Amino acid sequence: MSWDDKFSKDAKSIRASEIRELLKILEDPGILSFAGGIPDPALFPMEQVKKIRMDIERQPDLDRQAMQYSQTEGYAPLRQWVADRHTTTETTLESGNILITNGAQQSLTLLATIFLEAGTPIAVADPTYLGALQVFGTRRPEYLRVETDENGVRLDRLEEAFKAGAKVFYTIPDFQNPGGMTIPEDRRRRIVELAHQYDVVILEDAAYRALYYDGPPPPSLFELEGQFLGEGQWQKAGLVIQLGTASKTLMPALRVGWTIAPKPILEKMVLLKQANDLHTSTLNQMIANGLFQKDFDEHTQRLRSVYQERKDAMLEALRQHLPNSVRFSTPTGGMFVWVQLPEGMNARRLLEKALDEEKIAFVPGEAFFAGSGGENTLRLSFSTCSPDVIRDGMQRLSALIQRECVEKVA
Amino acid sequence: MSWDDKFSKDAKSIRASEIRELLKILEDPGILSFAGGIPDPALFPMEQVKKIRMDIERQPDLDRQAMQYSQTEGYAPLRQWVADRHTTTETTLESGNILITNGAQQSLTLLATIFLEAGTPIAVADPTYLGALQVFGTRRPEYLRVETDENGVRLDRLEEAFKAGAKVFYTIPDFQNPGGMTIPEDRRRRIVELAHQYDVVILEDAAYRALYYDGPPPPSLFELEGQFLGEGQWQKAGLVIQLGTASKTLMPALRVGWTIAPKPILEKMVLLKQANDLHTSTLNQMIANGLFQKDFDEHTQRLRSVYQERKDAMLEALRQHLPNSVRFSTPTGGMFVWVQLPEGMNARRLLEKALDEEKIAFVPGEAFFAGSGGENTLRLSFSTCSPDVIRDGMQRLSALIQRECVEKVA
Repeated sequence: MSWDDKFSKDAKSIRASEIRELLKILEDPGILSFAGGIPDPALFPMEQVKKIRMDIERQPDLDRQAMQYSQTEGYAPLRQWVADRHTTTETTLESGNILITNGAQQSLTLLATIFLEAGTPIAVADPTYLGALQVFGTRRPEYLRVETDENGVRLDRLEEAFKAGAKVFYTIPDFQNPGGMTIPEDRRRRIVELAHQYDVVILEDAAYRALYYDGPPPPSLFELEGQFLGEGQWQKAGLVIQLGTASKTLMPALRVGWTIAPKPILEKMVLLKQANDLHTSTLNQMIANGLFQKDFDEHTQRLRSVYQERKDAMLEALRQHLPNSVRFSTPTGGMFVWVQLPEGMNARRLLEKALDEEKIAFVPGEAFFAGSGGENTLRLSFSTCSPDVIRDGMQRLSALIQRECVEKVA
Repeated sequence: MSWDDKFSKDAKSIRASEIRELLKILEDPGILSFAGGIPDPALFPMEQVKKIRMDIERQPDLDRQAMQYSQTEGYAPLRQWVADRHTTTETTLESGNILITNGAQQSLTLLATIFLEAGTPIAVADPTYLGALQVFGTRRPEYLRVETDENGVRLDRLEEAFKAGAKVFYTIPDFQNPGGMTIPEDRRRRIVELAHQYDVVILEDAAYRALYYDGPPPPSLFELEGQFLGEGQWQKAGLVIQLGTASKTLMPALRVGWTIAPKPILEKMVLLKQANDLHTSTLNQMIANGLFQKDFDEHTQRLRSVYQERKDAMLEALRQHLPNSVRFSTPTGGMFVWVQLPEGMNARRLLEKALDEEKIAFVPGEAFFAGSGGENTLRLSFSTCSPDVIRDGMQRLSALIQRECVEKVA
């Protein structure tokens, strides 16, 4: 039987990501992986989780509440925490601006359904987060690809995309996945101005914002839009919708993320989430809330100090060992270093050799482009390995790249 | 600012459910509610949950695994349990036929995206599950409404819908929500034949299947299709996709459900779920798995005995107190009794009076119709109240209905 003729056009457009298929082999523990954009499980606050669980168990009503149907909007104390945490001088957030979702990925899904349909022009950075492209792709939009430099999206290219009719712009301003770039404050301010000039909704993905190592990132687009519009105006005129998550700072499998949006958007999202899966696991929301409410800043401070060492080890090893013809980003936070091999080299073929000869994995960069391109790029993650392992891995990977460069020249 | 012109057509079609808005007032503890289709939290297996959690905590690697990114398909032991549990003489299921979702509601969402788009004809019973209509509605299909009798969908009407081009048929064959009807075996067999005659995909929602009180329900459409097709044929030629859930037998806020589907469908669903929210909470899947693997049959036996008493109490009280002009269903399982008031009476207005005069709540039936109709119907749930409370509530509600009937005649 052919199922294909039964599928919707949206479904037909869904293709397996070759990259994700490839990464399945990484479950082989013999492989040294710089591929996954995942936090180090050794840093999970398991003892605090245990305390929170026991605290819930000691309250029979709360314990059962944690397992009963609940509000689509999310667990009230957690929504309030997010609102308070993101309130600025200009923009006071209420829990009515916050929707708890199954990770920021579900926020993207809801927003994609709300804003996109076949042919809707959406501006995205080249490169950008693969998972965003995957979910946008299920709505079959028209991508307006915006070239980046070491400071993120280029303003001239962004304005071109806005002029060309972009309805939505998706961006990760802090320590971008995969490029590692952080957009500087002046460029951020200009992005907000352009969004208002051309009436473009901005989806600001702030997933990595708390993971800064060389000083905090510039104010978020959400904060800057508050300044741009003036006190209390975001609720009425805001175009910036911000997505956040517990996945990078706490633990991914809690599947707890959120959207911060003006109420007309948020209310639409709540209805859609209700239709999509009723609500997010209450127990997991309670755990996330407990972790956020107590010692969260200490916890992220610890993450920052561990990840900083790893980031510095990776950058230093790359500086030392990579051939001069290879460029790489110098992130100040997040989890990723972006590598540009010489033109003509293919990162996918390099990966095959790296797996085969060195048992080392990374992610070829082309999957992060909304279309063709990036065949000579790759993404390295420094989040899960110790500095020593990183140094060893980067030395061996660099040597392989060196060999490949020589072979190519020869 | 007007957000409306920024929304996709799908988003514009999403409307707040008046019923669900209304039901928010039910959080008032002073109200005696027969409204929610929810399990009794007093029956949640909290002690076993605690044991499972402690068991996970004693294994540090597993404990961290429960919080790390994981496979989209679901937790392997849980998938295997679902596969084994649903394997029949004719149809051997593998874990590759099982996708774990955030409750069966997310299974519906994924299937709606895969099979429906604007204008796709889909057959649904009149009445049917509100949440299914909500999620299908986000794809703007064309509803082919199939009249029901006390045995579920009428075959003549169903064949008309299939002839009219239905691509998909959504059905809850066991103890239907909201109607309480169970489709008898001969009618089920005919439904499977018709599906193959007209090449219609069947979404079989088996949410209430384990909650039988007067003997088990007939074989599922999935089982019968296996018999119809012959041994091993469902994998190649099956049209029945079955949805299941832990929400009704274990606990809703685990947000653990599943889809059982032939592999080409399941693989498409996995890709879509990966794009939509990466994966379902691992901890919750581990808890569900622990509960399913141990003493699950004893647990459901206990649920059945408690709910049976409540169901019988409700039916007896309605028989005793309702005016003769009011008809009601006599379910043999599930959570619901469906009431048809005399023509011309309005259940929504009755609810206002019931809340006002008796502090009693139920769900007006019209929300369960894919379009207009059902104004004189209502749904009562017997799942959360003791027999005494049910008897008292039904007596008072019946008296109110009696008063309203008299008033209407007068």
